[in-house]
Amino acid sequence: MSTPIDFYFDFGSPYAYFAAARIDALAARHGRTVRWRPVLILALFKATGALPAPMIPLRGPYAERDTARTAQLNGIAYRQPANFPQLLLAAPRATLWIDTEYGADKAAAFARRCFEAYFAEGVDIGQDDEVVRLAEEQGVDGARLREAMHGAAIKDQLRKAGEEAIARGVFGVPFMLVDGEPFWGFDRFDQMERWLTQAAAVPAAA
Amino acid sequence: MSTPIDFYFDFGSPYAYFAAARIDALAARHGRTVRWRPVLILALFKATGALPAPMIPLRGPYAERDTARTAQLNGIAYRQPANFPQLLLAAPRATLWIDTEYGADKAAAFARRCFEAYFAEGVDIGQDDEVVRLAEEQGVDGARLREAMHGAAIKDQLRKAGEEAIARGVFGVPFMLVDGEPFWGFDRFDQMERWLTQAAAVPAAA
Repeated sequence: MSTPIDFYFDFGSPYAYFAAARIDALAARHGRTVRWRPVLILALFKATGALPAPMIPLRGPYAERDTARTAQLNGIAYRQPANFPQLLLAAPRATLWIDTEYGADKAAAFARRCFEAYFAEGVDIGQDDEVVRLAEEQGVDGARLREAMHGAAIKDQLRKAGEEAIARGVFGVPFMLVDGEPFWGFDRFDQMERWLTQAAAVPAAA
Repeated sequence: MSTPIDFYFDFGSPYAYFAAARIDALAARHGRTVRWRPVLILALFKATGALPAPMIPLRGPYAERDTARTAQLNGIAYRQPANFPQLLLAAPRATLWIDTEYGADKAAAFARRCFEAYFAEGVDIGQDDEVVRLAEEQGVDGARLREAMHGAAIKDQLRKAGEEAIARGVFGVPFMLVDGEPFWGFDRFDQMERWLTQAAAVPAAA
């Protein structure tokens, strides 16, 4: 059996959204599945001393132009959210909880919906109510989710997810691990695809 | 007449080397020329507070893997120089001087040779002697270059080149400006190519 692609993401990253819009189809073309792994990019940035691009002189304006252009050239619906950037906690916590309670497929479907809602539909997923609503659309028990989202257990789980990611060399999002090979950024999807093609041709190598 | 592509580079960047290996052919496919513009990446980093990737935890090891993989997938000869990273001053100064004394074509040819020597042939272009030798191979007067390389005029010119780049929004290398549209990174060559294709189709837009 081929191993799943580990896909690390933060809901606040436009590039993670682009990756989220394309990764399942890419994986399927190579007989792979995707393990969706929410992390907080700020936790990763602590490990490297990095700052979010929108807060960096010159890079902020470029990032705005580059995300719009990347969306357009890839045919992905995108508009920068009104409340951007912001620290998004409810969505990644909910994803982890849904993963535990309902399984990985439901968690991935929910995560995809959160990304679309935030980056294409103008929904502010920084609001608990919106996150719960999107979860309920997926058949999740909203009342239980709402309670779990603020519990110590889920906060601890998200913190540990970040530590585990850093231990595997993850320092940004989107970040993909394919049989241990690291790919950082939506702009590495072409390299990841070629890597998967080679891995299929010579299964033992890599 | 179509305007040249402005190509900002620092000789110490592997990604600038990859860009240098491909940019002239890319431009030619769209009836464009390339204006080779050496800058010091450290000067740009001062504007954004950035650090060189090799010095950042986690990002350093990733960058080493990513550059090797990018070179391999693009069929570009590459091995990480023994003395890397280092502050390279002689090569960009020489490029500016050759540009003034011998013209832009000669400067570009010299810059290409410096990149290849450093990143493919194990030549330490941090040494004045090597830079002078590579310039002489291009028909440049080595004695005059050696003298000019340490003069106040060329240092001032390189500093001003950095300031001008920052004023145009340049914050890293390789950085390309196509009719004012900014592209940062060798991984934006595909977007730049599509942009050039569109510009050719609708000359007045953009």
